[in-house]
Amino acid sequence: MKTLEEKIRREGRILPGDVLKVDSFLNHRIDVAFTDRMAEVFHDHFKDKRITQVMTIEASGIAIAAATARYFGVPVLFAKKTSSNNIGNEVYHSTVYSYTREQNYEITVSRNYLNEHDTVLLVDDFLAKGNALRGMIDLCEQAGAEVAGIGICVEKGFQGGGDALRREHFDLLSLAVIDRMDEDGKIVFRAE
Amino acid sequence: MKTLEEKIRREGRILPGDVLKVDSFLNHRIDVAFTDRMAEVFHDHFKDKRITQVMTIEASGIAIAAATARYFGVPVLFAKKTSSNNIGNEVYHSTVYSYTREQNYEITVSRNYLNEHDTVLLVDDFLAKGNALRGMIDLCEQAGAEVAGIGICVEKGFQGGGDALRREHFDLLSLAVIDRMDEDGKIVFRAE
Repeated sequence: MKTLEEKIRREGRILPGDVLKVDSFLNHRIDVAFTDRMAEVFHDHFKDKRITQVMTIEASGIAIAAATARYFGVPVLFAKKTSSNNIGNEVYHSTVYSYTREQNYEITVSRNYLNEHDTVLLVDDFLAKGNALRGMIDLCEQAGAEVAGIGICVEKGFQGGGDALRREHFDLLSLAVIDRMDEDGKIVFRAE
Repeated sequence: MKTLEEKIRREGRILPGDVLKVDSFLNHRIDVAFTDRMAEVFHDHFKDKRITQVMTIEASGIAIAAATARYFGVPVLFAKKTSSNNIGNEVYHSTVYSYTREQNYEITVSRNYLNEHDTVLLVDDFLAKGNALRGMIDLCEQAGAEVAGIGICVEKGFQGGGDALRREHFDLLSLAVIDRMDEDGKIVFRAE
């Protein structure tokens, strides 16, 4: 998505440790109109998949997931991050390793809102190594729900998580894939 | 908002400790169409206030805040919850006491995205004692931004936070105010 690539070039900041800050429009301040345009592209791509629910993880995926769910006319379910001592029997849970924080965290969804009749579109703002997505896929498998597709705003392609999912035949659409970025500000996007 | 009151009666569950679970449509699974209707009511009420930004706190306020911001044609800024050892000079921060978790947490917003030219509408899914809102008001004061109004989906009126803000002349609109609720399921709403 050219307009997203341009926005990343214009507003993104590259920090040490392969961190790309896009907090001007994606994950702190949110450009709502632009979020809608990204959501529309997800809808165009996945509209024939009979999606019953959009799913994401709190917090920064919620805005794009909700905008996408609006196009499909379905609810959005966001997995909650929690500590492992706060998990009841009412939820599915999965463990996710965070490279940023260098620790595990648990994600949960209520058993009431995800089941074997669901055809799920996973949506998130970022994809790096894919650990958060793997956690959501695990939750869907536990519930017997089908993962029909994955929509990502910004994929850090050089971290490999997206290509691993593609090799496993997930229908993954990333609106911008960064193949290389340097601290001097240079960003190379993968050709669409 | 009658439709919200009906939805709370139909789908809400009252748990020990004055907890009202409305995770079927508001803060776990999100009914996106209904969220839009709530956002429209906020817009009707605050539309003459020259709002430049909608502000909320992660995570469950993000969907309603983003929907509201769409009506105003402005961005949404969500304050981040963080631990106190992770605060740089780039942010405003404030300390919030959580009665649910019985501990303090820090909320932050980037100095880049909130300043003295902003006229802010605070939006959140729940209001109880008002501590999270007080934190957001503090962040706005630090930035020199004006708090022009507060839009809340569900106010637990019996916990007093909303009425304290009204006494201080904040323009607070709560779409449903619960004056009493019992564990046997009885809910009394304040007359509009």
